[in-house]
Formats: sequence, structure tokens, C-alpha cells
Amino acid sequence: MATIQELRCSICLRSYAPESVQYACPHCGLVGTLDVLYDYDALKTQLDRDSLRINREPSMWRYRDLLPISPETVVPPLQVGYTPLLDSRRLAENLGVRRAWVKDDGQNPTASLKDRASAMVVSRAIEKGISVVSAASTGNAAAALSGVGASVETAKIDIIIFVPATAPEAKIAQLRVYGAKVLLVEGTYDQAFDLCFEMSQQQGWYCRNTGINPFTIEGKKTVAYEIAEQMEWHVPEALIVSVGDGNILAGVHKGFWDLYQLGWIKRIPRLIGVQAEGSSALVKAWEQNLNAVDMQPQPADTIADSISAGVPRDRSKALRAVRKTSGGFLAVSDADIIASIPKLARLTGVFAEPAAAAVYAGAKRAVELNWIHPDDEIVLLVTGSGLKDVKRAQESVTGAIRVQPDLASVRQALNL
Amino acid sequence: MATIQELRCSICLRSYAPESVQYACPHCGLVGTLDVLYDYDALKTQLDRDSLRINREPSMWRYRDLLPISPETVVPPLQVGYTPLLDSRRLAENLGVRRAWVKDDGQNPTASLKDRASAMVVSRAIEKGISVVSAASTGNAAAALSGVGASVETAKIDIIIFVPATAPEAKIAQLRVYGAKVLLVEGTYDQAFDLCFEMSQQQGWYCRNTGINPFTIEGKKTVAYEIAEQMEWHVPEALIVSVGDGNILAGVHKGFWDLYQLGWIKRIPRLIGVQAEGSSALVKAWEQNLNAVDMQPQPADTIADSISAGVPRDRSKALRAVRKTSGGFLAVSDADIIASIPKLARLTGVFAEPAAAAVYAGAKRAVELNWIHPDDEIVLLVTGSGLKDVKRAQESVTGAIRVQPDLASVRQALNL
Repeated sequence: MATIQELRCSICLRSYAPESVQYACPHCGLVGTLDVLYDYDALKTQLDRDSLRINREPSMWRYRDLLPISPETVVPPLQVGYTPLLDSRRLAENLGVRRAWVKDDGQNPTASLKDRASAMVVSRAIEKGISVVSAASTGNAAAALSGVGASVETAKIDIIIFVPATAPEAKIAQLRVYGAKVLLVEGTYDQAFDLCFEMSQQQGWYCRNTGINPFTIEGKKTVAYEIAEQMEWHVPEALIVSVGDGNILAGVHKGFWDLYQLGWIKRIPRLIGVQAEGSSALVKAWEQNLNAVDMQPQPADTIADSISAGVPRDRSKALRAVRKTSGGFLAVSDADIIASIPKLARLTGVFAEPAAAAVYAGAKRAVELNWIHPDDEIVLLVTGSGLKDVKRAQESVTGAIRVQPDLASVRQALNL
Repeated sequence: MATIQELRCSICLRSYAPESVQYACPHCGLVGTLDVLYDYDALKTQLDRDSLRINREPSMWRYRDLLPISPETVVPPLQVGYTPLLDSRRLAENLGVRRAWVKDDGQNPTASLKDRASAMVVSRAIEKGISVVSAASTGNAAAALSGVGASVETAKIDIIIFVPATAPEAKIAQLRVYGAKVLLVEGTYDQAFDLCFEMSQQQGWYCRNTGINPFTIEGKKTVAYEIAEQMEWHVPEALIVSVGDGNILAGVHKGFWDLYQLGWIKRIPRLIGVQAEGSSALVKAWEQNLNAVDMQPQPADTIADSISAGVPRDRSKALRAVRKTSGGFLAVSDADIIASIPKLARLTGVFAEPAAAAVYAGAKRAVELNWIHPDDEIVLLVTGSGLKDVKRAQESVTGAIRVQPDLASVRQALNL
């Protein structure tokens, strides 16, 4: 395991001893999301990237040497991570770049990248002997936490999810299938979020709320480790990531940053964050050169529900990720997001949910903007499966052909 | 690769030279599904099960030495197979057996076991230079073929799917997302099936129709290889499999049979086929000791659409699989199938579609019938993800709790 050296606020840079603070920076408040930092010089002498190749399991836990979980802790049994990295010549040609890969994190057990964060947070709860883990979410984070929690055998972990009462019934049903307690809050998402956080602090539950809990990032960072390992430690020039709260983008950055501190990679890729036009708080902040603390609430109206966020909870780290890597934020329309679903599926065989398919439209736009160059190697991170939102996928296609049950009718339909 | 020695009819046992017959037995007709057989004595001297451990990729193609695809053929890039085998103490306790595992094939790229068959059939098409692959299916097989086909880069593979015009729009949309041509046939499923087969023969397309194409089994058998390898070649006493057309059951049997011929496993597990009460043609045939050729069409009415089949296409091999392994067929009600979805998810963290969750109800019943004993080790094969049919999952649960956005209301709701 990696021993935590300090927790450091991403805003004020105050340093806190490990375990002295559980959530965000006491000085800055919830905007002050914390970085979990290790003794990289020590790790550098102890670890060797090539040893990862030997008898490591095909999951995020192959990187336990770089994760803050003790060797004795039995992690949840669902096999999270080590998802495929697909090298797609057709995608590269279509985008006009040298090479392009898709990292398909829709292949996780509950079909989104959020499983990585939930596996990490639930492991922390097991380690600390906490028996309730809570979260406010209507989407992938809630499903991930409920699924991962249900799989735990070595402890009894109760999952409590706070959702606005208006959340879609199908999404709630999935959480109940896994046995999570679901509270339908008669209020907004922000009220559900605050209520979850307050209750957790009062009751001693472990709160997985995005951004507030610094360990979601320690799970999500493993997707960057995998990309680096799968590319033989020769990282791409740029990585395209969909952005709502900014926590995945921050996790990707942390993963590459860790590896860079260890000297295992030579540089950190440019990180390009893609938002929906109707929910583009970080695009605006980046264009206006605002800091996280100065950002004002923005509208959040997009069909890509997994990246809908008026006040991105991890805005501090998300802005830093893009600024430090000379990347950028851009916005794409809902129409382009919908159209990206079949485009990406037909080029690569990967069926993505709207928020995840947005990286295709984002990559196209980044090429037009010359943020990505013809000689670049790039990775598109697909954060969730298309099966998460089949209804939206339906809007993206037409063209099934009606035929009579005879050969002549089929021939005519196919121009044979 | 494994060189095919013969194709042998599962009914009349006539032997055909490899490539001399493409589909079912010319003598017996479509009921005479063919076995693909190898020179096991030769393979035995050439291969070593322990060599599978060394640098093999985490997909079904780790078993290329036992698959009929030449080393030069570039197989579709989607990472099919090598899905998790979850050891669940709670499931074992709940069922009253010594140990129980879930093999989670919902974790495949298009979220069902059918990806294995489609990857194999598309690889055969690539190898033979055939550019169109067809199938009649409304469900998982069609999605699998469309997804796997879309991912191919080394050849242009067109996928043509024949479905009854009454098929659900959401399922059709998924096929169109992947770019498959979809023909809505104004007729029954059987008419669509026959039309697909006839058109394929006339046009030289490769037809993936279940049972008819002997190579679907050669893909599906890899799930048995994986179970054996993941259990260190110490196979379980019994394996529980949901059964519609019987092709998956037959594939599981073929996989264990191959390994037994090679001497890599000491016995073949008892295979227990689970059908829905409303679609239980094989249960009836087995109870009445009928042969495949004597079976009459039966009703096919169940909410578990993936195992709805009035005339199971691979009935010959399915009956053989159960009879040769001293297994059995049993039926469970739709109500028990629906109830199995949350039961399995809460015990294991695996969210299964109705047809797949049926193995839980089936295992319960098999224990009651004393087909499974308290000292047995068993595996439940989960053939598809719950995300394939969230609507049915919704019917399986209740109990989200409505609260006001204040702490007192939450405390009251949770009895804190």
C-alpha cells in the first residue's frame, strides 16, 4: 500500500495530517477539495513499474502499491477496472490524428467509471470499520456505490442514497435492486447533497459525495494508471474527458501526476474537458480565467445527465488539471452529443451513454480548434455504457426497413 | 489453432469433412445440429493447460489453441470473455451448499454471453473473406453480432438482422446505433428466422442463426474453459444454466467435454437447465423422455424474453448435455424469476436480466429437489446484464422512502 503523507487543500494549499480531516478543507469550505499525497521519493525506491506485469489481477487493485488501502483489507469482490483500451484506426482516420484509442470504462461492473471511486470509498469504510456509506446522486455514482456495497462479504455495509424525489423511477429501481436504502428528498439536488453530508457527519456514516470525499479521486486515478500501462508507459499527447462535477477529470490528472512523480512516465497528457453547452460552468470559468472560489452557479440543462452540474463540485481540481497540462475546456451541443452515440459505436463498436459519447464531438471540435494536431496520439475516455440510457440512444438513429416475409421483398429493400 | 477433424450430426452421428457442410446436417435437417470435433489425441500431446497462464490476454482468445481460427486471422477487437467468476459465501449459505460462484457473463462488451458466439462467427467470416453476416434475433444475439461486427477494422463486415416487425423499438435502436441493417419482417419470429437463412444461402452471407450455425457453440464453449481455469481445473459438481434454444447449455457442455477429452479436468459437472414455466419445451421433453426429433412446438410465454423458445433450436444438443451429465431440466415461474433479480443482486452484487436471474430460482429449486446437495460446489451462470431490461427490474422492487429536506424527517424515516 501507499502510506498517505498529507492531505493538501487544492485552494489554499494548507497541509493536514492524514486522518485529521475527513472531507474538504476546514479553512476553505466545500470548494477546498483535498489532494491525497504520498511520499513519492520513498515509493520511487520501493516500486518498479515492470513488476505490475507479474501475476497482477485484471482490476484496479493491481495498483494496490499506489493506493491507500492496507494489504489486510479485503476489498469488494466486484471486479472493477482494468477495462479495455481499444486502438481504433478508423477513429483516428475519422478524427484526422495519428492514432486514437478508446478507453472503455462502460465495461465496469455497474457500467460506469464511478465503480472505481465506489470501490475505493467502500474499501476505506471496511478498513475503518464504518458500516454505513452514503451519497447524494441520481445517477452512476449511486448505482456504483449500491452495486459495490452489495458485493461486500467480509463486513455488513449499508448504502444510503439521497435523491431528489423527481429522480427517474428506473434509476431508483436499480439502486433498490442492489438493496440500497433510497431516500426521495422533496427538494433540489443541492438540498439532497447537503442533507446527505450533514446526516453523515452527525451519524458517523462515510459520505461518498463527489468532491467532498477526497478518496473518490484515489479510485478514479486508476484509469490513468491503466492507460499508461496499456500503452507501455508511452502516454498519449492528449486525453479527452467529459466533465460535469470535474471529479473524473481531476482523477485522471491525479493518476498521471502520481506516475510522473514516480518517473514512470515522461510527461502528463494535455487534458481536454468536454462539457455540454447547456451545462458549461467550467468552460466559462476557464475562458474568463476565473478561479474556483469566484465561480458563480450556472444553468445546468443538458440531455447528458451524467455531466449536468451548475456548480461543479470539484471545480478547483478540474481547472487545475486543464491549466497545468496546457489543455482546455470546450462545449458541445446536445444535438452533437446525441449524434456522437452512433458515430462512436460504428467506428469502434463501443456504445456509450450520452455524457460519455460527448468525447467524440469534443475530439472533433478540439481538432478544429487545433488543440489536437494531425500528428497526435489521443485517448477518448468513455465513462459509461450506452445501456445506461437506451432512451436517448433511440433518438440518435432511424432507418430500420419494413419488409414482407418473402425473399423478393427483402431483395427489393436491400437493392439486391 | 485447433484443426477441425470432422463435423458430426448430433442426431444421426453422420460425419462430414470440415467445410463440406456449412450449417445443419443435410440428412436430418435443421434439428440435426452439428458438433465441431478436433483431433483430441494430437491436441493432448501439443498442449499444456498450465501454459494458458503465461501472458494470455484476458479474453476468450486466450484459448486460441482450442479454437478453429487460424493464427493469422485478426479477430474482432472488442474484448469478449474472461469475465469474472465471483466466489460468494453468502450465496452458498443462502442456497445451502458448500460453495457457490457466479460466472458473470453480463460483463461482456454488449452485456451478454452471446458476444462469445458472435466473436467466433465474425472471426470465421473474416477468415473466409465473407463480408456479410446475418442473423434472426430480437435480443442479445442481434446486439452482440451488431457490436462485434462494428468493431472489426481489418475487413468491412456488414451485419443484417431480421426481426419481427413487432420487436421493441429500444432493442432495434441498439442495433442501429452499431450500424447494423435491420429488416422488420411483417410476420412471426419463425418466418424471420427462415427468411434470414434462405437469403443467406442464396446470397452467400454467413448466417449466425442459433443452432443452425455450428460455430456459435465453439465461441460459447469458452465460458466453460474459463470456469475450469478460474477454478484451477477443479470443476464444480453442478452448473446452473438458463435455457431457451439450448445453445448456451450445449456450448457449456462442449467446453467441459473438450477439456475432459484433453484430460485437463477429471469430470464434467452435472448440467442443470432452468426454463420459464411458460416456455418449458425442454423440461417437458426431458420429463417425457422424448428425443429431439419427436418434440412438438410448445407455448413460449414468459417475461424472460431471452429464454422464450417454443421450438428450442438446439434441442438435440441441450437434451444430450443434461442426459450425459446426469443433470436435469426444471421450470420456474415468472414471479420467481422477477423475485430472483434483487435476491441475486443483494447476495452477490450482480444485477442480471430476468432470463439470467432465473438461475437463482432454479438453484433454489434444484436444492429442494435434492439435485444439488449440501456438500456440493456449484456455479450459477449469469448470461446477461440487468441493464438489458431495466423495466422488468423495476417490477422486482419497491420501498424508496419519501422524506422532507430536513434532518428530522430523515431520522424519522430511518428510525434513528
